[in-house]
Amino acid sequence: MGRIKRIINPELNAISSLLARPSSDSKSVETAVSAIIARVISEGDAALLAYTQKFDHVSLASLIVSSEVIAEAQKGLAATLRAAIDHAKQNIYKFHWSQKPRDEQVETQPGVYCWRKSIPIEKVGIYVPGGSAPLFSTVLMLAVPAQIAGCKEIILTTPPRHDGSVDPAILYAASISGVTKVITVGGAQAIAALAYGTESIPAVDKIFGPGNRFVTEAKQQVATHQCAIDLPAGPSEVMVVIDATSNAAFAAADLLSQAEHGPDSQVVLVVEASDEATGHAIVDAVESHIAMQITHLSRHEIIRASLEHSKAVIITQKELTAAVINSYAPEHLIINTANLVELATKIQHAGSVFLGQWSCESVGDYASGTNHTLPTAGWARSYSGVSLDSFYKKITFQRITCQGLKAIGPIVEVLASGESLEAHSEAVSVRLKSLRRSDECL
Amino acid sequence: MGRIKRIINPELNAISSLLARPSSDSKSVETAVSAIIARVISEGDAALLAYTQKFDHVSLASLIVSSEVIAEAQKGLAATLRAAIDHAKQNIYKFHWSQKPRDEQVETQPGVYCWRKSIPIEKVGIYVPGGSAPLFSTVLMLAVPAQIAGCKEIILTTPPRHDGSVDPAILYAASISGVTKVITVGGAQAIAALAYGTESIPAVDKIFGPGNRFVTEAKQQVATHQCAIDLPAGPSEVMVVIDATSNAAFAAADLLSQAEHGPDSQVVLVVEASDEATGHAIVDAVESHIAMQITHLSRHEIIRASLEHSKAVIITQKELTAAVINSYAPEHLIINTANLVELATKIQHAGSVFLGQWSCESVGDYASGTNHTLPTAGWARSYSGVSLDSFYKKITFQRITCQGLKAIGPIVEVLASGESLEAHSEAVSVRLKSLRRSDECL
Repeated sequence: MGRIKRIINPELNAISSLLARPSSDSKSVETAVSAIIARVISEGDAALLAYTQKFDHVSLASLIVSSEVIAEAQKGLAATLRAAIDHAKQNIYKFHWSQKPRDEQVETQPGVYCWRKSIPIEKVGIYVPGGSAPLFSTVLMLAVPAQIAGCKEIILTTPPRHDGSVDPAILYAASISGVTKVITVGGAQAIAALAYGTESIPAVDKIFGPGNRFVTEAKQQVATHQCAIDLPAGPSEVMVVIDATSNAAFAAADLLSQAEHGPDSQVVLVVEASDEATGHAIVDAVESHIAMQITHLSRHEIIRASLEHSKAVIITQKELTAAVINSYAPEHLIINTANLVELATKIQHAGSVFLGQWSCESVGDYASGTNHTLPTAGWARSYSGVSLDSFYKKITFQRITCQGLKAIGPIVEVLASGESLEAHSEAVSVRLKSLRRSDECL
Repeated sequence: MGRIKRIINPELNAISSLLARPSSDSKSVETAVSAIIARVISEGDAALLAYTQKFDHVSLASLIVSSEVIAEAQKGLAATLRAAIDHAKQNIYKFHWSQKPRDEQVETQPGVYCWRKSIPIEKVGIYVPGGSAPLFSTVLMLAVPAQIAGCKEIILTTPPRHDGSVDPAILYAASISGVTKVITVGGAQAIAALAYGTESIPAVDKIFGPGNRFVTEAKQQVATHQCAIDLPAGPSEVMVVIDATSNAAFAAADLLSQAEHGPDSQVVLVVEASDEATGHAIVDAVESHIAMQITHLSRHEIIRASLEHSKAVIITQKELTAAVINSYAPEHLIINTANLVELATKIQHAGSVFLGQWSCESVGDYASGTNHTLPTAGWARSYSGVSLDSFYKKITFQRITCQGLKAIGPIVEVLASGESLEAHSEAVSVRLKSLRRSDECL
């Protein structure tokens, strides 16, 4: 493994290009995905079965996992894993429950009452990627807030394993978090099915969940015309900020845990130091811990590939640290420096922030209660991670009394006339005239 | 004007096709818009000036409206209009201020602290359409909540008038609601400039505002890769629900005020009646009021075109009303029936609801305080209208104490191993081991 590329005190306006993520636009993915979506729209379940045969090499008898199989799933799990899933669910439930919206009525002027009503999104779809491991944590992160919000249908879709089944840990997590249907389909075809519906899969109002480039592209395509989505998703990222007081072994472990997600994972180390030599020494120490720790890890090839394009930023001018963080707008940010409380107040753009040496990202990934579905690729500038809010929409209501209209009506007439929208003005005038005729509010 | 098309007691599963909005997919708009975006990216201000010459027939000396011109704008306004704009601003401010987020910390288990921090989106862009009238109300609806949230840059862009200037009412509204820069550019080129930035226009993080098909398409294109947007936008809509107790003249005025927006505006009347004959009589009454009122309106041609494709649904089975409303998911919903309180509780999908005979839509469009930027085309199933929330993103934070990690760490190890993410588990293990060495939390 080569040395991590080092950047020293970057110029403010150079930070974004020095830390630029690789772009992954691909016309071929776009074309392939729109063909898949079109076929799912026209052929429905038959297209899903055919794509599952083609991409997952599995012939499914049914796309739907029966409720008996779901109920039985817990028997296939070790008791410790089941208890750990239960525990994680509890914390996720607690943190997301605290986000319950409070809708209050406001009388903006006498007789003019305005309020919002939070209503759960009726039907939501949750995509859980397949691959080497069963991502039951994604089930909890997306289904638990849907359950708290009260979504009526929570449809989970995930690619089948080689034998056509779904991992029992995924089914168990689904069973304790209100999932109403589990479907054995993956890839862009699963997103198309959730967005447009098929004979056996109901169309949903919003799709959540991570996925590969095909899944992400499919989410973006359906988002334009058909169905809301949670976030624009991309490869996972962490920025780890340390100084001379930090434990280098912990930092190394945090970088490795991000790098194991995939060869396209983004890993950035930021080192605050009194001078350049100290900065280099700190990076050296982290690198040597990485070299030691990596030998024990089974996913070391993925990790090496990811670390190839990782970077270390050495900062000797402390005021630069927040600028580097905010310019990069990392999905995950771990701050483990002596001045962490002060630095935390300066964070403007990040998905989720982990403060102090005991707050490692993996605790938040699984069990502390925060959501792990977060904005990547700099989208933290404008997007929040998934939260309870993501499962509601808010309808505004207003009720204006007769007296209220008498007071506000003439103002609306002036405003509507000012925009040359005469009929808007008339909708008020016809009411005010009827009031003048009847002379008073009843 | 022909009679409004009438639908009697539609079957539940036929409602959506009977009330289907016209689809407006157009490959030619898509192609034209992507060419405009590409040219703005490569040529910057020069492209904006060239497109303004081409589409608006104006040669601009500068794209930016000077602060002197903005400050002078109020002199060009009638005092009554200025006062009405001030009044509207006050109510909008009050209602959106009440939506201020309250971030609270949760200790999900001892020593595990999680919270969210609401941070204003740093740079927002507001698009205000040009055309026949100055839409200063859109300025208030989008800039006031941005101002309350504390967005650092609020960039307004609007097409120039024939003489290259911007209407003083727009400038005045901008000046009282915290807009930091006003730019004289319209169309897809304005959206491209906001998303990618040019020499004189800073790139923003999120774009708000309505527009024609080119603007809407441009927002969708930049949303995929570059910049967040408020909502998928489309032609405006109203559904008006009345019964035999309602004032037919008011209903007619409400339908007309929606229809004047444009020939593609969607207008639907829903009539609850004891029997079909009564239902027809109520629709007849509304139609005759429309015929009387329309003669006074200057925009009657637009209105006639819009009413051509409007519909009336007559319902004699009361339980059907909520199903019709929820299936259509109208942007604006006016409920003016005897049972309005009960009916309001059944509304699941709508943008903004107006209750009772004095609550006409135009009051909410301008001055009651609610936002008029709302989901159209059925997007109310999954989207909220613009609110204060739209101008924030929320970052999650967590801090775990040494004791907290001792308790939760072993659970995270089990979960990470269950997902075969060994490095995630190790990030905890390396910390727990160091604790065992030092024997206790300090």
